[in-house]
Amino acid sequence: MSAGPHGAGPRNPGIATRGETVPTVPPAETAADAVDVSALLERGRTLATPVLREAVDRLAPPMDTVAAYHFGWIDAEGNPADGDGGKAVRPALALLSAQAAGRAPEVGVPGAVAVELVHNFSLLHDDLMDGDEQRRHRDTVWKVHGPAQAILVGDALFALANEVLLELGTVEAGRATRRLTRATRALIDGQAQDISYEHRDRVSVEECLEMEGNKTGALLACASSIGAVLGGADDGTADTLEKYGYHLGLAFQAVDDLLGIWGDPEATGKQTWSDLRQRKKSLPVVAALAAGGPASERLGEILAEDAKSSDFENFSEEEFAARAALIEEAGGREWTTQEARRQHAIAVEALESVRMPQEVRAQFTALADFVVVRKR
Amino acid sequence: MSAGPHGAGPRNPGIATRGETVPTVPPAETAADAVDVSALLERGRTLATPVLREAVDRLAPPMDTVAAYHFGWIDAEGNPADGDGGKAVRPALALLSAQAAGRAPEVGVPGAVAVELVHNFSLLHDDLMDGDEQRRHRDTVWKVHGPAQAILVGDALFALANEVLLELGTVEAGRATRRLTRATRALIDGQAQDISYEHRDRVSVEECLEMEGNKTGALLACASSIGAVLGGADDGTADTLEKYGYHLGLAFQAVDDLLGIWGDPEATGKQTWSDLRQRKKSLPVVAALAAGGPASERLGEILAEDAKSSDFENFSEEEFAARAALIEEAGGREWTTQEARRQHAIAVEALESVRMPQEVRAQFTALADFVVVRKR
Repeated sequence: MSAGPHGAGPRNPGIATRGETVPTVPPAETAADAVDVSALLERGRTLATPVLREAVDRLAPPMDTVAAYHFGWIDAEGNPADGDGGKAVRPALALLSAQAAGRAPEVGVPGAVAVELVHNFSLLHDDLMDGDEQRRHRDTVWKVHGPAQAILVGDALFALANEVLLELGTVEAGRATRRLTRATRALIDGQAQDISYEHRDRVSVEECLEMEGNKTGALLACASSIGAVLGGADDGTADTLEKYGYHLGLAFQAVDDLLGIWGDPEATGKQTWSDLRQRKKSLPVVAALAAGGPASERLGEILAEDAKSSDFENFSEEEFAARAALIEEAGGREWTTQEARRQHAIAVEALESVRMPQEVRAQFTALADFVVVRKR
Repeated sequence: MSAGPHGAGPRNPGIATRGETVPTVPPAETAADAVDVSALLERGRTLATPVLREAVDRLAPPMDTVAAYHFGWIDAEGNPADGDGGKAVRPALALLSAQAAGRAPEVGVPGAVAVELVHNFSLLHDDLMDGDEQRRHRDTVWKVHGPAQAILVGDALFALANEVLLELGTVEAGRATRRLTRATRALIDGQAQDISYEHRDRVSVEECLEMEGNKTGALLACASSIGAVLGGADDGTADTLEKYGYHLGLAFQAVDDLLGIWGDPEATGKQTWSDLRQRKKSLPVVAALAAGGPASERLGEILAEDAKSSDFENFSEEEFAARAALIEEAGGREWTTQEARRQHAIAVEALESVRMPQEVRAQFTALADFVVVRKR
């Protein structure tokens, strides 16, 4: 039951209560325990990356170079680099979903690439809009190459995503592009919500979940179904796989929100109390504020003061730790942990209503487990 | 032979040599003289605008409002407005192209709307990248609503364009989206070239034409074929209609470049010597620089000085007039005028190899004529 090098973990997600295991799933599916998640993620990377690189190579200079920098294939000086390409959960899902439709994983590759292109289009634009200077331990594109290149290359990756799918020339490619377009619209809606919430004192738990569903759920939903769509699955099957992916995305984001406050900086590569430093209205915060009671009220007062503070960046470790403790005392950490489990359970349950090879179901389940037990 | 209220003009384009007519087309096509171009443009507006507004209404707040401001439907305070929606050449072309395939003009409407959405996506992003503060006599979106909204709403319009086509759910819609994606990639390439040329002392005539083909030709090409594609035309027909639209776009841009220097400010709504004030390396400038001879060399020296000047914005009318005179003396104005005619002729000739109702051909031809004789 030990975690692999990429964090492939035990069957039962034990987030926050590390070491403990919580029986949230029926025993029939423990086949997921035997799945090598690292190998699954690696397969997605291995099959998708060459096609992704070929697509990016089609961009005219200097956009090809800027995109290669963004993906971590070269450094700011243009020298080859072996950057952190992320966890690659989306490509793994796209390939699996082709297998869910009884097809070879390769059938999902254009879908995996298109989803990665849309994901990275949104990162390029969001980093610029949010003024974020770092991504994956490196300066962001707008910081290195300027705002115009961040806009332009983002646009180009979005267009490439459609191109990669539509050049297949099949009816299925049209259906897949339509679903990807819907996910992209949700991504954009989520970013619009994120921006508008920044200017507000209070955000409800429901608003936060809706925003996270748009920003994270919709594209994981698309990744989880696009291979099946390309493989000829009917809309009902695709919708159910989308449901799995959407709730997987919400579980993923709940864990992300926990790691953003209590994550180990060595593992996450982020600062301690990262989301608190950025005043993010993430799930633990909004849940704590909504909980009521003395700790919740005290937290609300402190965060209202913080919002007005001009010296916020210079706050000490202890000051952030005190805020994190209040969030925990108000129940924000526990609520978010339960929320991750709840979304994980909905995702895994959705798989039950799709006919697919038992091995593929076990792999989908293992990926869902991985998402909630990961430490980074 | 007098121009209508929207500038519908005589059969033979007489740009620059106003009043004169130049017989560039065979007499068989003079049916174009009888076409009411204003009515053609108005039909495009009337059929496309409601569908465009319905599409934009799907955007989540505040993106719907920002987009409505961009389109001129509301003012900066949110009050209804009746803004200048542009010449609406693209919707007119999309509707005509459905008729070229023997279908009703309405078949082209989703194509007209998708093309308009892509065009406006590019305007939103380009204005931000270029730092342009005015468009259609109004403050640009980034100036009124901030850079983040300009990026976000641009992205949303791009996504909507795909949505409007793909929700038709037909094989033709997939083909149309693929062509629109190709045109969008060209738009992005053109903007990348435009940005890179700004930092260079010299741009060749070929580079300028390539950039203008990408920025203007590709989307007019798509507009001229998308209705036919939606109407079931084969790829050969669509390619030929694209050829018409591409060269129409180059003619359009050549005229735009002439108006950008010698246009009547009353008609164009721009400042005198507008493109010179912006140091644009437009066709008359690059052609004049490439021509050689004393005026060309003198112009090169002056523009090199200008590029270093910190007082450029305060130059007098006379100083810009002197530069315009040198461009003309070096042959830049005459070359660009001839280029507009040359591209117009290629566009009209392309129509010859597509079977279509004679009336539709006359309308396509009349639109090409309109594009080169327009004064704004």
